[in-house]
Amino acid sequence: MKKIIGSFVFICIVFTAFAQWPAMGKVEYKTMPSKILNEDREYAVYLPKNYMENTGKSYPVLYLLHGGGGSHTDWPQKGSLAGVANQLIESNEATEMIIVCPEAGKTFMNYFNNPEWQYEDYFFQELIPFIESNYRVIADKKHRAIAGLSMGGGGTFVYASHHPEMFCAAYAMSAYLYHQKELFWLNTDNDPVQKKIHQLVDDNNCVKLVEYADAGKVEAMKTVNWFIDCGDDDFTLRPNLELIMAMRQAGIPMQIRIRDGGHTWEYWHSALYIAIPFVTDCFRK
Amino acid sequence: MKKIIGSFVFICIVFTAFAQWPAMGKVEYKTMPSKILNEDREYAVYLPKNYMENTGKSYPVLYLLHGGGGSHTDWPQKGSLAGVANQLIESNEATEMIIVCPEAGKTFMNYFNNPEWQYEDYFFQELIPFIESNYRVIADKKHRAIAGLSMGGGGTFVYASHHPEMFCAAYAMSAYLYHQKELFWLNTDNDPVQKKIHQLVDDNNCVKLVEYADAGKVEAMKTVNWFIDCGDDDFTLRPNLELIMAMRQAGIPMQIRIRDGGHTWEYWHSALYIAIPFVTDCFRK
Amino acid sequence: MKKIIGSFVFICIVFTAFAQWPAMGKVEYKTMPSKILNEDREYAVYLPKNYMENTGKSYPVLYLLHGGGGSHTDWPQKGSLAGVANQLIESNEATEMIIVCPEAGKTFMNYFNNPEWQYEDYFFQELIPFIESNYRVIADKKHRAIAGLSMGGGGTFVYASHHPEMFCAAYAMSAYLYHQKELFWLNTDNDPVQKKIHQLVDDNNCVKLVEYADAGKVEAMKTVNWFIDCGDDDFTLRPNLELIMAMRQAGIPMQIRIRDGGHTWEYWHSALYIAIPFVTDCFRK
Amino acid sequence: MKKIIGSFVFICIVFTAFAQWPAMGKVEYKTMPSKILNEDREYAVYLPKNYMENTGKSYPVLYLLHGGGGSHTDWPQKGSLAGVANQLIESNEATEMIIVCPEAGKTFMNYFNNPEWQYEDYFFQELIPFIESNYRVIADKKHRAIAGLSMGGGGTFVYASHHPEMFCAAYAMSAYLYHQKELFWLNTDNDPVQKKIHQLVDDNNCVKLVEYADAGKVEAMKTVNWFIDCGDDDFTLRPNLELIMAMRQAGIPMQIRIRDGGHTWEYWHSALYIAIPFVTDCFRK
Repeated sequence: MKKIIGSFVFICIVFTAFAQWPAMGKVEYKTMPSKILNEDREYAVYLPKNYMENTGKSYPVLYLLHGGGGSHTDWPQKGSLAGVANQLIESNEATEMIIVCPEAGKTFMNYFNNPEWQYEDYFFQELIPFIESNYRVIADKKHRAIAGLSMGGGGTFVYASHHPEMFCAAYAMSAYLYHQKELFWLNTDNDPVQKKIHQLVDDNNCVKLVEYADAGKVEAMKTVNWFIDCGDDDFTLRPNLELIMAMRQAGIPMQIRIRDGGHTWEYWHSALYIAIPFVTDCFRK
Repeated sequence: MKKIIGSFVFICIVFTAFAQWPAMGKVEYKTMPSKILNEDREYAVYLPKNYMENTGKSYPVLYLLHGGGGSHTDWPQKGSLAGVANQLIESNEATEMIIVCPEAGKTFMNYFNNPEWQYEDYFFQELIPFIESNYRVIADKKHRAIAGLSMGGGGTFVYASHHPEMFCAAYAMSAYLYHQKELFWLNTDNDPVQKKIHQLVDDNNCVKLVEYADAGKVEAMKTVNWFIDCGDDDFTLRPNLELIMAMRQAGIPMQIRIRDGGHTWEYWHSALYIAIPFVTDCFRK
Repeated sequence: MKKIIGSFVFICIVFTAFAQWPAMGKVEYKTMPSKILNEDREYAVYLPKNYMENTGKSYPVLYLLHGGGGSHTDWPQKGSLAGVANQLIESNEATEMIIVCPEAGKTFMNYFNNPEWQYEDYFFQELIPFIESNYRVIADKKHRAIAGLSMGGGGTFVYASHHPEMFCAAYAMSAYLYHQKELFWLNTDNDPVQKKIHQLVDDNNCVKLVEYADAGKVEAMKTVNWFIDCGDDDFTLRPNLELIMAMRQAGIPMQIRIRDGGHTWEYWHSALYIAIPFVTDCFRK
Repeated sequence: MKKIIGSFVFICIVFTAFAQWPAMGKVEYKTMPSKILNEDREYAVYLPKNYMENTGKSYPVLYLLHGGGGSHTDWPQKGSLAGVANQLIESNEATEMIIVCPEAGKTFMNYFNNPEWQYEDYFFQELIPFIESNYRVIADKKHRAIAGLSMGGGGTFVYASHHPEMFCAAYAMSAYLYHQKELFWLNTDNDPVQKKIHQLVDDNNCVKLVEYADAGKVEAMKTVNWFIDCGDDDFTLRPNLELIMAMRQAGIPMQIRIRDGGHTWEYWHSALYIAIPFVTDCFRK
């Protein structure tokens, strides 16, 4: 009997291993130093299956941002990043690319600069240069894209608005676009610290960012391929609709999807199946 | 500064909590005794959001089988069971139901009876009765369905064939239907123990099960709504095509899908979005 | 040679006929008298495949409205109504139902009452009663739904708002919701006749209809299952976004989809694949 | 009143016209001379919206074949060719391309050479050269694809097998692959003329074509991107499954989809949404 089980277990291991048999793209977890933030920063990076062998090849790159209170492990673990990317590349709906998930979120001071936390500076002055000198990425606007969910959707929009010369595509999922005071747990009227924080959030109000954009900024924003994706049951829906109207008013083209769902990982997992082919199209154009 | 972080963290926790704010269906992990297998067996159970409150309501039930070498935690953790079910129920594509994931797999002796491991007996004589006396399920064929992946896809097919009076619907994903000797890691010619094991597998060869079915068995099988779903890059594709041809030859109707993908969790996760509405349709008929 | 061609042609006819071989649901074109409009009115009606045989069975009914300048033949001919309905019923995504396409559009005076054209009165006082006494429909709110595109999307919304006691579901596609003066071909400032007409359109401004609804009307509207579907390139997008915001402000739940596309039949054809299962879900609840 | 109607009608015309307002790709119906067939042949051609203006640009080309007993107007009229292509190009899921629908079908002597009807010769020796000298197409394998339904699915497979050096992609929908005698209306045992005809069909038996292919032919076939798409209720399903198994046995990679549906235009219309992006991917590689 033991022998039987032994054999079973052996097969079982082989069998389980099978899923990984064909070379597949994989996620690695790493750290990098940051002078601006004065500490090491973690990140996750998806490398397509041929990355190690094709040493002569360079790849386009997608920066993929997590949500408020999340971390760089969210997309790989809750969003099945490698599984989705492998599936899309295998079927040629996506081109081989490198996907970088920064870590910005163990507190709420995510993506925006403030005196204690110059994250946006870190992102542009340290993270992107670090990636471009440590991985074989094609380091131009045409092959660089950004996407993110919730707070990372807001970050996506703000970063690509501040630096339209950097990204060919920006995909915002369920984006948190300004301080939504009507949500009771974000009503901070009686808390001076919260007030200060949300002042920072509102300094990066995406709707106003578009409404106040001058002609030059609008023209620059038109060079980015925008995508706004938000669930019909999401608490961020109203701000996203306002953003859409502001962008249309300003004459900035974009793709829009309102799909069935809420502020959930099922939504973002399925969004990834749209986002990766979308940025692929932009890379391939 | 500490105060700021404190506030941030507070919001962060509240914010993260938000995802769980609305009552949602959840998965619980439990054990049950088994005389037949002479040990406690684990299982996972998904209970829809209104289960605890609606004490007067009974629910249809879906038995959802894992693959070879897997366990009852696979569907909840790798397959995002609760997320998918909640999403589908929320949008009314699925009816509220109870979903039971048995544990059959820490060795390869999964779903089929053999002298050391009478699992099929356990399933029908102990597990189903246990579920029906401990949960508010509607205990009839019209409200009982079965589904599974790989070895559990084979198990799904065999169980619903052996007991067509028990299930209104059977959904087999990437089903492993007989010993595929052409796959080198399943070539067991030189290993007597393996030979014995695979003899058991082949005793439950699903294609032959259909080809050898007599008229009465075929008529009984027609009372089940069958669904065969397999990826176009899956190593089980050929046996699945043979099964389809055998069933058509026998005149047993079925739904068939060959979709893009391989023997991967991305495939099964997306299959769940088809399977749960499919069994819902059968429950609602 | 002639003989060969003869044989070929014979097979060819049989072969072509094959598509119609299995009994299928069909569209019929008919007329009915109208005292209110003082003329016969045309309509198209889809009857599911078992309608003639199952003389003891009654069916739910969907009223499906065409767009401005269109007619009752649009959905059957440009929208492939029978093909879509048959496909959905065959796969059980839809229940068997009767689908009625009224004719309201050879001029622009479509769906709203005005002194010369009391179409809304005709619809509720003559068309619905006529259908319910001439076809085997289940004549209650739970089994009656309405849907439509463009002007018919506006009509759908207005009718179901005026008579929420009549419909369990209302699905508005690319709905034209008020006079969009910013579109140059609808700028009617210098034309007194146009001004009068668009005054009528604006009397049925859907956004205002919601914004001005009192508490009782809002409660009544909540008894309808609403669905708003509009393409991201559609010139009606902005009013649809405003309607969505007004309904959310009023607390009226709805399904929302913004999908890829414009004001085109490709969009409406694909919308039908969502609308018919949606009303089916409402019928089945 | 007349004035009102006049104004209405005016708007109505403008409004209806709107759908065509933005420049859109269009289908034209033309004829060309054929020495081989000794008569003029009709064809339809879809030209993308920028075709007339971009006189310096050349396009990839897709040959799109109709079914048995059909004609070159089928895809444009029953399959909404221009609507689908415009929608896909607009959203960048497809690249701008020229699509040619030949006319091969007013009798059953469709796509295969026989003494009275050298259609395959016409296709390769006259049609393709005619298109390439009369339209701005990129005349190489990498930018030439073929697709078709039913008899045209068989034609697609045979043409791309006979001339793998000509096409980068071949997409067969619901392909009729050999004489299916089990279908009673194709049982030709007692009709010598039919027997002769079906002998020709069986001379182009696609399954045997693969089974009998020598190593050189198999290698050549691997240079084509194949796609087999067939509905689960289609009477051609079994031969398509056999073809899939033969190709896998031969080691020829392909995409496979078995989707919900039968031998209907709803199926082929939806197939077009897969086929055009698929050939686009091949053009873009």
